[in-house]
Amino acid sequence: MIRVAVDAMGGDRAPEAEIAGVLQALAGLPDEFVVQLVGRSEIIEAELAKHPDADRSRLEIHEAADVIGMGEKPLAAVRRKPRSSIVVGLTLQKQGRSDAFLSAGNTGAVLAASTVIFGLHNGVERATVATLFPTGTDPVLVLDGGANLDCSARELVGFAYLGTVYMRDILGRANPVVGLLNVGEEEEKGTAVVREAHHLLKQSPRLSYTGNVEGRDILPGPQRRTHVDVVVCDGFVGNIVLKFYESAGRLFVAMLSARAPDVLERPALRELVGLLDYSSYGGAPLLGVRGVSIICHGSSSPNAIKNGIRVALQAVNAGLNAHIAAEFAQREPAARS
Amino acid sequence: MIRVAVDAMGGDRAPEAEIAGVLQALAGLPDEFVVQLVGRSEIIEAELAKHPDADRSRLEIHEAADVIGMGEKPLAAVRRKPRSSIVVGLTLQKQGRSDAFLSAGNTGAVLAASTVIFGLHNGVERATVATLFPTGTDPVLVLDGGANLDCSARELVGFAYLGTVYMRDILGRANPVVGLLNVGEEEEKGTAVVREAHHLLKQSPRLSYTGNVEGRDILPGPQRRTHVDVVVCDGFVGNIVLKFYESAGRLFVAMLSARAPDVLERPALRELVGLLDYSSYGGAPLLGVRGVSIICHGSSSPNAIKNGIRVALQAVNAGLNAHIAAEFAQREPAARS
Repeated sequence: MIRVAVDAMGGDRAPEAEIAGVLQALAGLPDEFVVQLVGRSEIIEAELAKHPDADRSRLEIHEAADVIGMGEKPLAAVRRKPRSSIVVGLTLQKQGRSDAFLSAGNTGAVLAASTVIFGLHNGVERATVATLFPTGTDPVLVLDGGANLDCSARELVGFAYLGTVYMRDILGRANPVVGLLNVGEEEEKGTAVVREAHHLLKQSPRLSYTGNVEGRDILPGPQRRTHVDVVVCDGFVGNIVLKFYESAGRLFVAMLSARAPDVLERPALRELVGLLDYSSYGGAPLLGVRGVSIICHGSSSPNAIKNGIRVALQAVNAGLNAHIAAEFAQREPAARS
Repeated sequence: MIRVAVDAMGGDRAPEAEIAGVLQALAGLPDEFVVQLVGRSEIIEAELAKHPDADRSRLEIHEAADVIGMGEKPLAAVRRKPRSSIVVGLTLQKQGRSDAFLSAGNTGAVLAASTVIFGLHNGVERATVATLFPTGTDPVLVLDGGANLDCSARELVGFAYLGTVYMRDILGRANPVVGLLNVGEEEEKGTAVVREAHHLLKQSPRLSYTGNVEGRDILPGPQRRTHVDVVVCDGFVGNIVLKFYESAGRLFVAMLSARAPDVLERPALRELVGLLDYSSYGGAPLLGVRGVSIICHGSSSPNAIKNGIRVALQAVNAGLNAHIAAEFAQREPAARS
């Protein structure tokens, strides 16, 4: 029985969205699992009381007296608040009493606490937040999604391996194609760090590295020159493109709705809007730590929480962490020093 | 009479798209202007021969024997090929024999040649390519669009001033709001360069600086927290977001077309697709040089060339360069050293 700890205090709409999402997951996901709600018991109980019909047989409550706010400095907050829902939830897993953790709270704090509490796999230099971009067909993994603003070339190479294992395990792509996000396809394009990363990636074993890709190659479509499954970039670029894409999708839908409101009622178009909905992917896994930690958007809907739980279950079921450890154990000692 | 020099040899579809665009501009734009086609005369004549009805009274041909290819290293190519269409076209303007230059050729070469031949305005540290993002309503200016991959904080501040003057002169916005592209709105967010740029921008006179903005704030729509007219970023991020946006627009239209082909036939939707079409903006001005230099996409259509000529005419008519010179002359001497 998989145990998923959910930070009940984290998101902008906590605990309402979290509790509703957890109940949807328990009712709707096929896997056998229990949810461990982590937070202030009385607040959780009060929210659960709004759902009198909820099946509580697979629900536990784990008391955590403190909350790390969205604006707090991550590492300092993690150190100062050992009784916060984030630290308590991750510690459960470290102690072997839980299998996965999910939070829509302070992203930096989840990253810092996960790194401190779990540690990194041997050979991993930095943990990364991996975000799936919906495309209407096969989603594309972009990493880093905002956790690491400045990255070295070696760290970018590490992201390529982490993303490859993730796409294989969770999306079932046997041989994911990796691209390095750049301003042009040619060797000499890009900043010094990106040029060095390209050089290193070309020599990296067991990667399907296709080379530099441009902004137009992330999404499928007529403009794409190179198919990619995994796009590697630093977290500054990744975060900006991710948020830009969300807003572009909403702008297109809003424009369509203003000009052809009837059209959005058609099933084929409702499906299209759904395909482009970020909440269908739910959560971004933190890759590289020795544990399962899923980061959800602060404004996550219940559906996003539910789908974040699905991602957590997939990571546990697939043995993602064992595969990441095995992949990095195969890397050349020189690449790990 | 305004004289616009057009690089007839530059783009992926040169000289066909260039000549067709020039003829559309001469027939369709209300301004009084002549076009100076720059390139190999026999190739230009052969292409013009395909348009026997064209009015050649406002067309000149200026011989340039050489072409700088898309893959050539910019500065080296500019130095090695003084008879290239780019160098010849810009030199006409430097000599007072032309008022504006437009090319869909090697962007780096146009940038390098414009900087070398025209020089920069006093106080400008780097020229920048300013790109308009179509939004369906008021376009947003993003700069740098890819000319300067690594930027100092001071250079980013310079882009804010250049973009402000441009939006005032060309788009008629009296008091354009400037945002600094970042991963969050808070002071402490971002890389060291971006944090410093934020600090400097807050203290910069005569700018309507609204602070850090995120990827979701570039486009209008329900997700936007802050209205912006001008978005400042380095050229690495700017180029990636620009190309990503083009491809996202095409992906949405392709998805819509697959699911509701009849809908795209409606006038309101055709207008929507047109509103999001980059070619309606035509060209990206190179700001900061002592001259008018418009950079078009390598794959520019005739419509894009025509609209690039419109941008060139607007820049000349508005006195953009005099206004940029005046703006930078007002800046503190300390900011210029």
